[in-house]
Amino acid sequence: MSIATLDTSEHPGFSTSTQTLFAAKAEKGLNFEQIAQYIGRNEVGTAALFYGQAKARPEDISKLSELFQIPHSELEKQLNGFPHRGKAVEMPPREPLIYRLYEIIQTYGYAYKAILNEKFGDGIMSGVSFSTNVEKETDDDGSSWAVITLRGKW
Amino acid sequence: MSIATLDTSEHPGFSTSTQTLFAAKAEKGLNFEQIAQYIGRNEVGTAALFYGQAKARPEDISKLSELFQIPHSELEKQLNGFPHRGKAVEMPPREPLIYRLYEIIQTYGYAYKAILNEKFGDGIMSGVSFSTNVEKETDDDGSSWAVITLRGKW
Amino acid sequence: MSIATLDTSEHPGFSTSTQTLFAAKAEKGLNFEQIAQYIGRNEVGTAALFYGQAKARPEDISKLSELFQIPHSELEKQLNGFPHRGKAVEMPPREPLIYRLYEIIQTYGYAYKAILNEKFGDGIMSGVSFSTNVEKETDDDGSSWAVITLRGKW
Amino acid sequence: MSIATLDTSEHPGFSTSTQTLFAAKAEKGLNFEQIAQYIGRNEVGTAALFYGQAKARPEDISKLSELFQIPHSELEKQLNGFPHRGKAVEMPPREPLIYRLYEIIQTYGYAYKAILNEKFGDGIMSGVSFSTNVEKETDDDGSSWAVITLRGKW
Amino acid sequence: MSIATLDTSEHPGFSTSTQTLFAAKAEKGLNFEQIAQYIGRNEVGTAALFYGQAKARPEDISKLSELFQIPHSELEKQLNGFPHRGKAVEMPPREPLIYRLYEIIQTYGYAYKAILNEKFGDGIMSGVSFSTNVEKETDDDGSSWAVITLRGKW
Amino acid sequence: MSIATLDTSEHPGFSTSTQTLFAAKAEKGLNFEQIAQYIGRNEVGTAALFYGQAKARPEDISKLSELFQIPHSELEKQLNGFPHRGKAVEMPPREPLIYRLYEIIQTYGYAYKAILNEKFGDGIMSGVSFSTNVEKETDDDGSSWAVITLRGKW
Amino acid sequence: MSIATLDTSEHPGFSTSTQTLFAAKAEKGLNFEQIAQYIGRNEVGTAALFYGQAKARPEDISKLSELFQIPHSELEKQLNGFPHRGKAVEMPPREPLIYRLYEIIQTYGYAYKAILNEKFGDGIMSGVSFSTNVEKETDDDGSSWAVITLRGKW
Amino acid sequence: MSIATLDTSEHPGFSTSTQTLFAAKAEKGLNFEQIAQYIGRNEVGTAALFYGQAKARPEDISKLSELFQIPHSELEKQLNGFPHRGKAVEMPPREPLIYRLYEIIQTYGYAYKAILNEKFGDGIMSGVSFSTNVEKETDDDGSSWAVITLRGKW
Amino acid sequence: MSIATLDTSEHPGFSTSTQTLFAAKAEKGLNFEQIAQYIGRNEVGTAALFYGQAKARPEDISKLSELFQIPHSELEKQLNGFPHRGKAVEMPPREPLIYRLYEIIQTYGYAYKAILNEKFGDGIMSGVSFSTNVEKETDDDGSSWAVITLRGKW
Amino acid sequence: MSIATLDTSEHPGFSTSTQTLFAAKAEKGLNFEQIAQYIGRNEVGTAALFYGQAKARPEDISKLSELFQIPHSELEKQLNGFPHRGKAVEMPPREPLIYRLYEIIQTYGYAYKAILNEKFGDGIMSGVSFSTNVEKETDDDGSSWAVITLRGKW
Repeated sequence: MSIATLDTSEHPGFSTSTQTLFAAKAEKGLNFEQIAQYIGRNEVGTAALFYGQAKARPEDISKLSELFQIPHSELEKQLNGFPHRGKAVEMPPREPLIYRLYEIIQTYGYAYKAILNEKFGDGIMSGVSFSTNVEKETDDDGSSWAVITLRGKW
Repeated sequence: MSIATLDTSEHPGFSTSTQTLFAAKAEKGLNFEQIAQYIGRNEVGTAALFYGQAKARPEDISKLSELFQIPHSELEKQLNGFPHRGKAVEMPPREPLIYRLYEIIQTYGYAYKAILNEKFGDGIMSGVSFSTNVEKETDDDGSSWAVITLRGKW
Repeated sequence: MSIATLDTSEHPGFSTSTQTLFAAKAEKGLNFEQIAQYIGRNEVGTAALFYGQAKARPEDISKLSELFQIPHSELEKQLNGFPHRGKAVEMPPREPLIYRLYEIIQTYGYAYKAILNEKFGDGIMSGVSFSTNVEKETDDDGSSWAVITLRGKW
Repeated sequence: MSIATLDTSEHPGFSTSTQTLFAAKAEKGLNFEQIAQYIGRNEVGTAALFYGQAKARPEDISKLSELFQIPHSELEKQLNGFPHRGKAVEMPPREPLIYRLYEIIQTYGYAYKAILNEKFGDGIMSGVSFSTNVEKETDDDGSSWAVITLRGKW
Repeated sequence: MSIATLDTSEHPGFSTSTQTLFAAKAEKGLNFEQIAQYIGRNEVGTAALFYGQAKARPEDISKLSELFQIPHSELEKQLNGFPHRGKAVEMPPREPLIYRLYEIIQTYGYAYKAILNEKFGDGIMSGVSFSTNVEKETDDDGSSWAVITLRGKW
Repeated sequence: MSIATLDTSEHPGFSTSTQTLFAAKAEKGLNFEQIAQYIGRNEVGTAALFYGQAKARPEDISKLSELFQIPHSELEKQLNGFPHRGKAVEMPPREPLIYRLYEIIQTYGYAYKAILNEKFGDGIMSGVSFSTNVEKETDDDGSSWAVITLRGKW
Repeated sequence: MSIATLDTSEHPGFSTSTQTLFAAKAEKGLNFEQIAQYIGRNEVGTAALFYGQAKARPEDISKLSELFQIPHSELEKQLNGFPHRGKAVEMPPREPLIYRLYEIIQTYGYAYKAILNEKFGDGIMSGVSFSTNVEKETDDDGSSWAVITLRGKW
Repeated sequence: MSIATLDTSEHPGFSTSTQTLFAAKAEKGLNFEQIAQYIGRNEVGTAALFYGQAKARPEDISKLSELFQIPHSELEKQLNGFPHRGKAVEMPPREPLIYRLYEIIQTYGYAYKAILNEKFGDGIMSGVSFSTNVEKETDDDGSSWAVITLRGKW
Repeated sequence: MSIATLDTSEHPGFSTSTQTLFAAKAEKGLNFEQIAQYIGRNEVGTAALFYGQAKARPEDISKLSELFQIPHSELEKQLNGFPHRGKAVEMPPREPLIYRLYEIIQTYGYAYKAILNEKFGDGIMSGVSFSTNVEKETDDDGSSWAVITLRGKW
Repeated sequence: MSIATLDTSEHPGFSTSTQTLFAAKAEKGLNFEQIAQYIGRNEVGTAALFYGQAKARPEDISKLSELFQIPHSELEKQLNGFPHRGKAVEMPPREPLIYRLYEIIQTYGYAYKAILNEKFGDGIMSGVSFSTNVEKETDDDGSSWAVITLRGKW
């Protein structure tokens, strides 16, 4: 089974922690499900942490240091700042899988806004009190379905 | 309670059917939940149909003609073509509510890709065998949460 | 004293309510301070309402209908939907006064982020639990100073 | 408590002084409040100086040299030129915290202009005779509020 | 069966002939296969002619005038100029179906170039001595496949 | 006969595998036809694999390791991740040969959509259940013709 | 001698006052030198006023009303608001004459900054306490030279 | 007094001669006024030469070699080609001082064109038979004024 | 033989004179060669005049008025201003024929600059003392060749 | 006399062959006229070859290897691939000399299209069966004129 990797020759500009963590992940041959389970965060949040898009909690640093046998102080130095979010993905995304998600916003954007406004009134879905996860479902025909859930406080 | 409306003076460029349907919706004072229930589609799909982002089924045309008392032939003429999707929302979206959804793709794009690839292998979540819906949840503190679900075949 | 007006020949694309309200404002020769006082909102919020960037409360509609002698039902029809925010100002702004504000973000953006993160931790200043106002100060030399305050929940 | 850091692997293109100062800040583990107090400038101005967006006064160089034990001549060489402002933040900002500030300009731009023009007449808020600061307020419910003030000569 | 139509309210900016021809097509309820057969051109070429992307031959004008009962002189006046190609589709295309074709170029562009150069040497596939067509295939499982062929002189 | 090569001085940003494979290809002096035959994939797919636009199957890695005498483990490490598609070609393409393909989408985009919708109904040509190939034809006058075929499931 | 005119068919989007003033200018056949002399402003400022880029003083409105025999109240209504500057010229300018000025900034921008900083220290040339004018000089060979002067407070 | 410097860490992409000359300027601690006087060119032209925006005359190379004690042959090799103008300043400029100049073109562009056309007829101000300079004036109140003059053959 | 026409429904935004002249050209069925011969200008210049890209001389107005039987005063009013050049063609051009010319600049731009600089020294080819024309050549095989010549003073 | 050179510090991203050839050209002090004469190609084609915009023929490689005393095998390796055209010049060009050529397309684009269509019918000037050259003419007043000719098969 293949695992997600990061080739810095193709993806320059990521933070030092991103490089460190992906190198360790490739070395250990772990997928995000295994890592997420080990550190006790959800899978998407764990991957976001690897890509420098989420703030590491002190216990994340300890667990990752343990799991990957990276000196704690070294990892802490790399993960102790505040994440500079939103820098990773070029927009509009050219990567087809990510583009499909972008296209959903483009196609359903107004529909979401209309429905959300009618259900909740004027306002916004929070991007802070927010969680997201990815599930795999298999239907009766054996086909796989990806289910992405976005849950935010109004 | 306010309902979603469309001011063509602010939003030129929508299809004739979009203008017809929103004018009728405002006239009748119906929200999408009521319309969706009447025509038997999910709410987001119904709103998408109004914005010209989904193909109307023959029964949608009949039901909408009935509900809004618009001559069937007139509505059919407006809804019988194929939707030109993706034209509605300007990207990057400047509307804050829609921008938040866009920002989620920007922030979590790589994380979604990594998780999806690790769970399903190389490939893409279908945008055709695809459904999406919006739910409102209330937690113990009485706070409202918006939950958006995207479900697509792999 | 000049008052802020809107020339639709120069600014097409605003909502019907924006056109109605600015025409009435010019007709009555009122400035936003007077209107804000009448409807009981702060000045920036009142102007934002005129530009279609804020949701009108039922009492705003009543007060404005009264002040400008516009039939209540007509104004309600125009103001009853949900605002489509962010559409008004072209970005980057070419209007010099607005550009100066944009430039402040460009110059101090990272500094604000660093200070806010250090003071509040990881997170974001809310754009919903948010208020803003403009004050005029005069110093000892008789010079005028504009003071803009942004106040948002963390 | 985390402090703001700079990872040059993620943020290439900053001036040599920015790299020097952030490396020293991380080494000493100081936040901007402490540094600002030491050099006697306001916090935002101090951070702006670190990001190369403000001109260092001779006494800033002396104080920073002292605080961080960097040879005075070395720091002077790096900080003696004129700042090339506006280069740091990519616009439109993709970082969510900075984007919120940008969005405020996008949403309230015309409202600010209208209010400022009505209060001060035709003209512009100076970006030179200008100061800005960030305060933290706590309300009765214990919630934190960020207050950003922009003060410019008309 | 639905046929392709053109809603000028959604698609302003097409030539007069495009408007005339699509109105007539909708009126007669014909699809491009039927029209193509009548005028003796391939289907894609016929549709391109309708969208103002191909030059009408004198016999096309006669046939279309006949088929749609539009006075020959009127149609000739509209179709007699030289097509202004490439104006129709906004790039990058936001319409998902057209985007998929665009994405193929984005993904396979270099591969096509490498293969074409190795097979034909340095040079270019002509866009003048060029034809393209669309076929529908059904496989053993009853699934439909779209086959687009591009054929150009080297 | 010239073969397709990759000059990393002109094309930075490709993945490590792309650099490895093109260096080996140049060293061995093989064209894609020969390589495709050896690994048993079609030519375009083989080139796409080289450019990092297609996922390598385990047998591709074995065959390429064999053909180019690159240690299997080294190549596996480089090719084992998931491709980040769409990153290679800058859009709009400035390379004339690739631009011609782009221009075909720009010119015929609406025509393809109309024909495909009329033939298949509402929907999309899959980019996953998809294959493409390039053929060389010679006509009676000895002229060469490039024929590109795109075949996708509806 | 030709005079500067405005064709609204080619230049939509100017303010009502711009349209009124240019129509009157064309009708009277006056050039900006004559108008400037009549209203007592410099030529560039007068033209800027016509293009909606400068605020009209009360006496400008009176003089222009007089000169062009436009009812004072009508002109006052059109000119009484605050100018929305910077909207007129598309940037980068495509008009060759204006492009030359743009190109001067592009070429000499850093040189101006370096010289201004060395002469005046850190700071900015004011765009408010600012005047500009255009002169025509003729040298000994009878050649004409255009001299544009920009004068701003530091 | 500070002098203009160049930090290649912040400004990559300048020519070798720009790097050489700025390093020497910083070393010697000279401002452009002093250098311009030594080589006998005007100040803006001298700075333009340093930024690679002007062609060095043979005597400039000799004088600069002398002044900075750089071997003549080395400097000649760096300065002997033809300048690639316009590459230095990013447009629209984000640097506030340079932006002000850009804004002047944006605001007064049409006014300049109208005045120039009325004074000189159809045509263009030359960018070749062109000179520009910067002067410092002090008014009776002791305030400093920057005066930039652009002089070009018609 | 077809002649060049202008469909204002497809090409809004041209000047009134452009609309007048193309309507008259279509009415009379004349091509540019015939018109150019009648007014005594070269063909490209004549077409440029029609597209509003060249200044009409008084004798051009007289001749065109005569040829098309348009009242002289009406045509003079439309053609008497100064051309706003460069507005017609969208850049990068999407029209394939115009794109080919653009592509030539893209491909050969540096080569032209190198050759011109080596032949003429530092400087620029004038766009004012400039003429251009198009010729048709037929070679021995009966093939047609388009020859475009650009001639500008250095 | 100066010759065209290439400073890779200012122009990164060119191919290895471009770097090799320009370094050799500078070393030998040859201009393109001399090199073109030696290898028997026209001047523009020779420069295009240097900039990586034209395919080297085997005899070009031999001649250049001879002229510059670069080992044949080394040069062949660098020049044996297929050129990736169009990558060199940034568009819109900021270099003034190249911008003038771009501006000609912008100004005369429609005029060229109209004349070419009227002379040749619908179609395109080939970019493959194409040649271009630059000549220097001197008129009776001793003024120099640059004449650029573009010649393409229809």
